[in-house]
Parts: sequence; structure tokens; C-alpha cells
Amino acid sequence: MVVVMRLDASEVQISLVNEVLTSHGFGAHLIKGTNRIVIGAVGEERQLLSELGLEGMAGVEKVVPIMKPYKLVSREAHAQSTVIQVKDAAIGGQDIILIAGPCAIESYDQVLSAAQRCRAAGATVLRGGAYKPRTSPYSFQGMEKKGLEILQQVGKETGLATVTEVIDYESLQEASNYVDIVQIGARNMQNFRLLQAVGQSKKPVILKRGLSATIEEWLMAAEYIMASGNLQVILCERGIRTFETYTRNTLDLSAVPLIKELTHLPILIDPSHATGSARLVGSMSKAAIAAGADGLLIEVHPNPCKALCDGPQSLDPDAFAYLSKQLQRVASAVDRGFPTVTTAEL
Amino acid sequence: MVVVMRLDASEVQISLVNEVLTSHGFGAHLIKGTNRIVIGAVGEERQLLSELGLEGMAGVEKVVPIMKPYKLVSREAHAQSTVIQVKDAAIGGQDIILIAGPCAIESYDQVLSAAQRCRAAGATVLRGGAYKPRTSPYSFQGMEKKGLEILQQVGKETGLATVTEVIDYESLQEASNYVDIVQIGARNMQNFRLLQAVGQSKKPVILKRGLSATIEEWLMAAEYIMASGNLQVILCERGIRTFETYTRNTLDLSAVPLIKELTHLPILIDPSHATGSARLVGSMSKAAIAAGADGLLIEVHPNPCKALCDGPQSLDPDAFAYLSKQLQRVASAVDRGFPTVTTAEL
Amino acid sequence: MVVVMRLDASEVQISLVNEVLTSHGFGAHLIKGTNRIVIGAVGEERQLLSELGLEGMAGVEKVVPIMKPYKLVSREAHAQSTVIQVKDAAIGGQDIILIAGPCAIESYDQVLSAAQRCRAAGATVLRGGAYKPRTSPYSFQGMEKKGLEILQQVGKETGLATVTEVIDYESLQEASNYVDIVQIGARNMQNFRLLQAVGQSKKPVILKRGLSATIEEWLMAAEYIMASGNLQVILCERGIRTFETYTRNTLDLSAVPLIKELTHLPILIDPSHATGSARLVGSMSKAAIAAGADGLLIEVHPNPCKALCDGPQSLDPDAFAYLSKQLQRVASAVDRGFPTVTTAEL
Amino acid sequence: MVVVMRLDASEVQISLVNEVLTSHGFGAHLIKGTNRIVIGAVGEERQLLSELGLEGMAGVEKVVPIMKPYKLVSREAHAQSTVIQVKDAAIGGQDIILIAGPCAIESYDQVLSAAQRCRAAGATVLRGGAYKPRTSPYSFQGMEKKGLEILQQVGKETGLATVTEVIDYESLQEASNYVDIVQIGARNMQNFRLLQAVGQSKKPVILKRGLSATIEEWLMAAEYIMASGNLQVILCERGIRTFETYTRNTLDLSAVPLIKELTHLPILIDPSHATGSARLVGSMSKAAIAAGADGLLIEVHPNPCKALCDGPQSLDPDAFAYLSKQLQRVASAVDRGFPTVTTAEL
Repeated sequence: MVVVMRLDASEVQISLVNEVLTSHGFGAHLIKGTNRIVIGAVGEERQLLSELGLEGMAGVEKVVPIMKPYKLVSREAHAQSTVIQVKDAAIGGQDIILIAGPCAIESYDQVLSAAQRCRAAGATVLRGGAYKPRTSPYSFQGMEKKGLEILQQVGKETGLATVTEVIDYESLQEASNYVDIVQIGARNMQNFRLLQAVGQSKKPVILKRGLSATIEEWLMAAEYIMASGNLQVILCERGIRTFETYTRNTLDLSAVPLIKELTHLPILIDPSHATGSARLVGSMSKAAIAAGADGLLIEVHPNPCKALCDGPQSLDPDAFAYLSKQLQRVASAVDRGFPTVTTAEL
Repeated sequence: MVVVMRLDASEVQISLVNEVLTSHGFGAHLIKGTNRIVIGAVGEERQLLSELGLEGMAGVEKVVPIMKPYKLVSREAHAQSTVIQVKDAAIGGQDIILIAGPCAIESYDQVLSAAQRCRAAGATVLRGGAYKPRTSPYSFQGMEKKGLEILQQVGKETGLATVTEVIDYESLQEASNYVDIVQIGARNMQNFRLLQAVGQSKKPVILKRGLSATIEEWLMAAEYIMASGNLQVILCERGIRTFETYTRNTLDLSAVPLIKELTHLPILIDPSHATGSARLVGSMSKAAIAAGADGLLIEVHPNPCKALCDGPQSLDPDAFAYLSKQLQRVASAVDRGFPTVTTAEL
Repeated sequence: MVVVMRLDASEVQISLVNEVLTSHGFGAHLIKGTNRIVIGAVGEERQLLSELGLEGMAGVEKVVPIMKPYKLVSREAHAQSTVIQVKDAAIGGQDIILIAGPCAIESYDQVLSAAQRCRAAGATVLRGGAYKPRTSPYSFQGMEKKGLEILQQVGKETGLATVTEVIDYESLQEASNYVDIVQIGARNMQNFRLLQAVGQSKKPVILKRGLSATIEEWLMAAEYIMASGNLQVILCERGIRTFETYTRNTLDLSAVPLIKELTHLPILIDPSHATGSARLVGSMSKAAIAAGADGLLIEVHPNPCKALCDGPQSLDPDAFAYLSKQLQRVASAVDRGFPTVTTAEL
Repeated sequence: MVVVMRLDASEVQISLVNEVLTSHGFGAHLIKGTNRIVIGAVGEERQLLSELGLEGMAGVEKVVPIMKPYKLVSREAHAQSTVIQVKDAAIGGQDIILIAGPCAIESYDQVLSAAQRCRAAGATVLRGGAYKPRTSPYSFQGMEKKGLEILQQVGKETGLATVTEVIDYESLQEASNYVDIVQIGARNMQNFRLLQAVGQSKKPVILKRGLSATIEEWLMAAEYIMASGNLQVILCERGIRTFETYTRNTLDLSAVPLIKELTHLPILIDPSHATGSARLVGSMSKAAIAAGADGLLIEVHPNPCKALCDGPQSLDPDAFAYLSKQLQRVASAVDRGFPTVTTAEL
């Protein structure tokens, strides 16, 4: 790290900082500027930085970290891209992965209907919420275990892999018996206990970016999971909060090439939650693939107007099938493959 | 609510919306504008709005809710301000409440030293973290149960009430045996399971505003707790995330008069986390009281430079005692009382 | 508009609001809810809303506008997409438009070199800054008139149309003699005097979105130009300010389909300023075209490391040529054309 | 500055960076970390940093400036606080300055009525807008020269100093003949031409912070004015844009102690624009003074409901007089003086 001393820092203050650094095993290099002293400190800053208390010391103006705070998620440490195989889906590989299904599981018929149509259109993973973290205590909160059973059943019947969101230790334990992938939602991105619990599970996990999380915080959340033992982390950007009110959130697509540069993990885009509007999902899906995303999470509901949750942002199955064909062309234009479906399979 | 139809909405689309509204018990009033139809819908929108799916219906441009989505927290429903009594502290009453102590509990000596000095300076509640939700998995994570024992012990010896943050169901159960108040941190403000669990407990709870939560979402989180049965909710603003980088967060003091207008609940300010800098804590504490806050959460550490967590934003006990005297003058200028300490008591 | 009265609004307060509305020519429709009165007001709210002072009246809780505040830019008023022809470039038409060139004009050789290479790679408009609005008074401020002469000269030699940013009335007058298109930069998006001056000119204008402008404010700025008489407005999104620090700004690509829905005007994307990093320009350019943008503004410098301004975000000509070929494939995948260049032309 | 090289930077890349630095007169100090090279560069980075192009060079990961980019506004360069004397008002001195008056000048009677009442309540400067930068081209745009004449006339009759906003070169020239202080509004904070023009004038200037300006950018705007020759700069915070929608903007009061630490310039707060609501102005005014602000800009209108501009946020004269008495008590609690008015004077 680099410690910038104040213009008026005294000799004593400078040597106290020096002492703290060397006593913690850092090599300290003093650079005398025209007006001020800057100290370059060489050592294991990742673990010690927050405990040195340098920023609170007299004479210190600021401390600039040099090392990135994450390690396991970093491409510097792991040059090859991670590919996570779940049934037919190789997430992070050459092919674009489509994860589709309703926001909330409402009934067996609803999920089956959505699943069959999504599969026919190229989806390889079925999504469906059993535990719904809702802003209002008066909104529908999910079917819980009953919903998981439906999801598992439909997964078996259609051959689709399945994913559902978990919201605490109990739901994680329960869901792990039914689904192929678990998801940590945006509001739980810094629920560190849940991250650790997921880290101790064997399930692949989709980690959504928090509503106002920086990319660095998001990667630190992934680091929590990996540091706890689970290396199968899939990142998913779903829009960040800004001052704009015409869209629900602002989809940060520049996160895609950045994540590809900084980490070896797969990255998905959720255009449904990001925009909050079915009318914008198509354009943003195409843009996501052109930007280099490994796949998409798209809400598809057999009858969006009757959805118990997030209807306005859901596509109906026809719209999804139409979009899928367009996505195939964009994928091809950026040298990515696309799941193909033969009638025989269906 | 008000449903604004698109300019080109057809008669059929309008009557379908009408039908949905009336079939759910709403009275629907059509207003014909110069170019467009607007439907005023009268009824229990709080529970039904998200399930009607109106925004996804053909011909609908937007839906504007009229009722506030919260009820129990609202001053409309409960005109008198809520006062929560915890030992000597009447939070939300006439007197300003000072809650002080270290960010993380590190040892009995550390906490006792901080507590004695804070009490002598006018604090009536002792804070100290036993479970630390840290951004990095490589940072100090808290002493957990051992920390709770220290906090309880020091609370007994000094007569101070105690508060600690809980981060999941287990820590809530454990902490409830040791402390007088539990706290939900900013990152867990929308951990709805935790909100419900706290709602079922009997402990007063400090609910911190999320990093990027709107005031409405914050009040909905409080509504979750109250709807689950716990009416002893204390709100605490601790800075929101903006583009500004000179401060850790941006303290939103206008939340104070707004909360007083919208709700009957007490509101505290945490200037330490909001600014991230001990040098700004004094000014922001004075401002908070002048704005009408019911109290302050201030980090005080016997030796800020050696703090295992958040040293740069901690005051040392002398600085806290000096500040407390200044706060007393500001409190008096806005007709608020202030805890007084007689030497005999100590 | 809809006027929501407070729960405790008196009969007198309600009739006073009613009176204000009717005396200004609005039809006022009272809707009695279970607890409160809502007034639907039908009339020309666009011009009168801010002058009625309703929000300040006793008993009024809030006023919800129904009409969009803009008119001339709106697709409701002008269903057909506007195409602006500038030399070979039909901006807003079937073909993707590439506008390329250096951030700042530094010399004839620099601009000519960039222009020839950009043209060969498919660009039809040459950009170059003569007046540079720089954050620091100590940074290079642009070559002004001398720069305009270079731009004009290179435009003639290469057959490219030209665009430059104007920053006040004088620079607008001067630049109008030299270039084909003028540009209003993000920092001047709400410089209303400049908007009016550009509105009185005959030049096509690129209007960049302000750093923290909502889409509505951006469209209101376009409305200023159109209301002053100039209908040739081209919108350009160039990143908005968020809390994210890994990128210079956050590119809001969802603005593309939204702008297409709300207005009839062409929309461009500037990935160079949005990301601040040449490494991200390629991905974001492909994403922009996939999202439906009509064209791109890309910084190209013959030698980015020696650029006097914004070097880190500039592509070198080889990288631009390579990118252009990739963009052609994406354009084709979304049924858009792409300028083709024959060797004979060069 | 500090140049952080990439992990995989080659020897050649490192020596090229070294060469660029030394050829521009920087002393370059290489620090070898465990994995990477960091270069500490000593020299005049303020003028050269943006021209070196280091961030675009191969092998460079990031460049961290050490010096603050501003100089003339900095307290490091000018330890003593600047006090700007305008008639009876010593802005930045011991006394709190109240600047009050209507948002827009509408008539002689309106301004005189507001001025007399404001003066009686302790205001020493009269504000009134003659040029109104309005978001909509269809809103009232100000009385311009006629308004300036009214302002000057009322200033003479009441003995109040006067301030008005200028929006371009012409309005600056015109206003300079009529008022004592000119103001640069939030939307023009980075209108660099206007900053330079004001820098060449002799008038004291109030520089409002831009809607989404960082404190550093705001200070750079002040640096523009001072670097152009005008040292009489008064800063004014008026709320920044966030995701919160219950208030018009979010008042950033932590800017007050920060500005006092970083600069020697006076700082005012505008609670009217920051909150957009008269009901919040009182609390935020008290908080501003407690935080250490040198004064307040408050909108006062003889009849807020009939204001042509920003009525909902204006106080009526009675409310202002009542607030002024409360502010006096808060000022006294933080050892600040307050203008006193004797009946004889009026």
C-alpha cells in the first residue's frame, strides 16, 4: 500500500507510521516529494490493512491500497475461465445459457407450461422463486417447500436444470434437496452468514450483484463463498440503483467486460429485474450477449398479467421464443454458440 | 390508485382494466382528459396493488399508487410519538440519547474503559459489536458469544443499557439473552427473514437504513417488524451511498424531519459510519440534534489507532466527553433535554 | 394531473384547490376514496402546472402530473422516426453511423492521420474538439479557431462530415462556419441559453445527456432546442454518474430502447467517455448496436499515449478498424446496415 | 503520483514509464513489491498528469495522484479563512449571514414586501432571480433587466446587499451593473466559460455545487474563478442528486466541515432547493448552522402559493421571522454571532 503523509506531518509522526509498518512485516520505502513524504509499504496488505489503523494515525492523510482485496476470484490467480457444468448447461463456456421461468412459482401447471415453452425456445435452466423476498410484508411471500417440489418435478419432466433463490440457512438446506443451482438475491449479497453457508454447500451458486454494490464489493462477496470452499460461483448483474426513474434500475453492462477482465468466473445478465419492463427486455438481452455475457436470466410467465409477482417485466412464452431466435443471431455475430433444440427432443 | 391509460388505448382495453378493478372490489372512476383516459380506483390498494398486474395490461401507461404502502409505522395511524424505555434511556422522548462504545468488542478491559468514560460523558446506552459483518472474509469477524458476555458484564457494572448487532436467526437468539436492544445493520435492512424473526422477539430494535434504501423501503422494513408483532422499533440513519468519495457515505439529515412527519417512531443518527472520519463526527452530531434527531450512535474506542475495526472513525473518550458538552448546548437551543451526570453517580 | 389531498384536508381546503383549478381552465373531478379525496384535473398541464402553486397549498399532499412534460420530441406527436442527413451520413436511418476522431484537435497531421484511417474503417463523420471544457483550469483547453480550420480542411480532403463541441454563444457562431454538426456536451446539457442559441441555428446538433440527468430532463433539453426552431436534434448517451468507481461513468444502454419508444429522434452512444477505458470500448460498442443505437461516437487517436486529452480511452486506428469489422457483424444480426468502403473510394 | 504496474508488466514497459516520467522532470522511485512494481513519481503533477498519458501505456494498471488538483482554494496554501465583505455582511466571519428573498422577481411590490420583512428578521442580503434557468421551455423564464432594476431599487430602499444568478456572459455583464454579488447556479457549475468570465469580474460570487458534482469538482470550479483573478468566491451547497424521491435532492451537510478543512472559503447552505419543501427548511437550517455553515440562502415569498417559481419550497415572511429567532439560539450554541436588528433601524 502507499501511505500519503500530510504536508505538516512531523518527523515523529512519520517514524511512528514506519514503525507500525515494519512491526507488521511490511517493507517501508520513504519517498520525499517536494512538499510531503509518501511511504510505499510492501507486504501482505490484504489481511492486515484494516487492522493497522494507519488512517487514524496522526499525520496520515490517506492510505492507498495497491493489491486488489480479492484473491480467489481474481483472474491474476487463475487465468483460465471457469466453466460450471449443470446438466446440459456449461455455464461460462462457448454457448450462451438461457435461464428462464416465472418470478414466483404459483402452481404446477404454471411452471410446467412455462418450462415446456422455454425449453422449446432454447432455455437449458428453469428458474422459479419459492421464497420471495418482498419489499412489503403484505405481498405474496412464495410457496416455499411446496414450490420446490413443483420445480423439481417439472425439472425432471422436461430435463431442464433448476435454480431457485435462497434467503437464509433454512431455505438453503431445504432447497439444496430439490434444485441444481441456488441463487443469492441482490438484497442478500452482503448477508455474510448466508454467503458462508452457501460456501460450505456443494451447489453451484448464482450470486446477484447488490442494488448499490460496487463491483469490488460484489467480488468480495464471491470471495466469501470461495474462501468457504465452494468454487462454483456464477455472477449475475441485475441493475443498480441510480436517480433514473423511467427504468426500475440501471443495467450496468460495462460490468460484463470488466468481470471478464478481473475474474475467471462466468457472468450472466438479468434484463427483467434490471429494467422492470418487458418492453425493454429484448433490446437489453441482445446487448448483453453482444457485450460478452455468458447467459441470461429472463422472466417468462404463461400469463404475465396474472402473475402474482413482477408481471410487468415478464415475457410471455411466444415473446421469449421470438427473442431467442434473435439472440441466436447476435450470439453468432460475436462467435458464441447457442443451444439448439431439435423437435425430436421435445 | 390512479391508472393512466395510453393515448392509443382502445375501448376494450379500458373496459378490461375496469373489470379487473371492480372484480377486486375497487370503485373505478373514469376521467376523460382531452386526449386520454385516467381511471381513479378507490379501495384497499396496499394489499392488492402488486397482485392486480395492471402495469402489464395492454393499454396501460402507468399506475400511480395513492396510499402510502406502510400502515403501522405511519403517523397517520398513530399520531402520538412512540417513546421506547430501556433502563435509564427514554428513546424518542424529550431527552437526547447518546449511544456510545467501540465498533467491535475486543476485550473486557477495552469495553469497560470505553463504557466508564462514555457514561461519565452522558451516554446511557453502550454499543459494541460481537458479530461483525465485514466486507472482506479476511477481516476480523467478531468475538461472538464471548463478546456478548463482556458486553453484559460491563453493562451490569456501569448501569448502562446495551445494544449489539445481530446478523441471523442464531445470533438473534443468542444476543437476546445478553443485551437490552438488538440492532439490524444496514446490509440486513432487507433481510426479510431476519426482520420477521426480530418482529417475533420482545427486544427493542434499532433498524439502520440500508446503504441505498429509499426512505419508503426503510419504513417498509420497519413495517415488517411491526407487522410481525414487535412495536419497539427505533430508526437509525447512517449515511447513504452516492458518487461522493471524500466521505464514506453521505449522511442524509433531511431524513430526520421527514421521519418525524411520516412516522411516530424515534430516529437516531450514526455520524461515525456516515462520514467514516472522526474529524467530521462532531459537526455532524451537532447538526443531527439541531435537525431534531432523538439521539446519536457514536463510536468511541479507548485507543482508536489500535481498533480492530473502523479505527479512523472512532473518537477517543476525551474527544467524546468534549463533544458531549457541546451537544448539550445545541440540545438546549432546540428545546431538548440532555442526560446529566452527577459525580456521585459514578 | 391528479391532486392527492391529505387525509386531514378540510372541506374549505378542497374547495380552494378546486377553485384554483377551474379558474385556470381545468376540469376538476373529485374522487372520494375510503379516507381521502383525490382530484383529477383535466387540462393543459404542461404550461400551467408549475405556475398553479398547488403543491404549496394547504391540505395538498402531492400533485401527480399525467402528461409528459415534452411535446415536440415525443413520438406520440410524431410517429415516424426522424432521419438527419449530413453529407453521406443518414443519422437515424437504416445504417449504423460511426463518428470517430480524436478527443482534442492537436495538429493537422494528427487529425488527417486519424481521419484517413477512420474513413477507411467505415466512419462517415469526423469528430475533433476545438473548445475543450476541462475540469482543471491547468489542463489543455483546445486550439479553438485554429482547430476548426484544421477540422474543416481535413473534412474536405477526406469527404467526411465534421462535428465539434460548442460551449457558448461565441464558439457556436464561430464553429457554425466550419463544421457540419455542432455538439452540446454533457456539462452544458442544461445551459438553457446555449440550447436556445443552438435552437436558432440551422445546424444539426448532437445533444449529450448530462452526467446526472434523468431521461426526462434530457428530453426537456431537446425540447428547448426544438421549441426554438431547430428540429435536427440527435441524442447521445455517454454514461451517467453512479457510485461505481471501476469505470469513469456507467453507460445506461437501456436508454436506447426507451428513447426509441418515447421519441422520434436518433440516438447515438459514446462508449469512450462512458467507460473511460479503451479496453471496454469494443464490448460496449457491440452492445450499443445490439440494443438498437443508430450510431457510435468513438475516440480514435493516432497515438493514444501521446494524446493531450483522454488518451486512456482512445483507440488507435488499427483497433478501430478491427472493431469496425466486428460491429458490421452485430449490425447485420439486428438487421441494420453498415457503411461499406471500397478501396477505389480512398 | 504513484504508478502501479500490472503484475505481468515487462522490464521494457517499466523502463518506458520511467523514461516518460524523468523526461517530464519527475523523480521516479521504483518500489519492488512481492509481485509487482510500483513507481513513486515526485514532481509537478498538477499540470502534467493529464498530459503524460501514463494510464494508456502498456503495463500500467493505474495511476494514483497524490497532490490535490486545486491550489488557490486550498487551506494548505492559505491557512486563514477568507472573509468577504458586502455592505453589512461579512461572509465567512463570525456572524451567520442570512440571504433571503423570492426565487423569481415578479414585481416591485413582491420584492419590496419580501425584503422589508426579511430585513426585519435579520437578513442582510436580498436574493431574487432575474434570469431563471428552467427545466421546461414552457415555464416562466424571468424578468431579466426589468427584474434587475427592481432588485437594485429595493436594495437601495432597504439597505440590503443584493445577489442574483447569472447564466451567461451577457447576463453577467448586465447584472454586474445592478447587484452586489453574482451567483453561478448548480447547472452552470461546470460552464467553464462562465467561470472564467466571472473570474475576470470584480464581483463577489456565490458558486453553487452542481447537482452531481463531487466536492473535488466543485473546488476545481472555484479554482477556475480564482485562477482567472477573482478571489471573492463563496461556496454554496444546495443538495445533490441521489435515488431518494421523498426530497427533491439530498442535502450533503458533511460538505460543511469538509470544506472548512480543505479550503479557506466561506460556505453557505441553501435548504430550500436542497429539500424542495418548506416544511423541511427549518430543521435543515438549524442543522446547517450547527454543522458550521457561514450562512443560509432561504427562499421567502410574500405569498408562496402564488409564486411563479418554486412556491412549495418558499417560506412566508412570518415563518422566516419565526425561524430566524430559532436560528439565533443555535448560532449562539455553536459560538457564532447573529445579525441583530433594532427597531430604530427599520
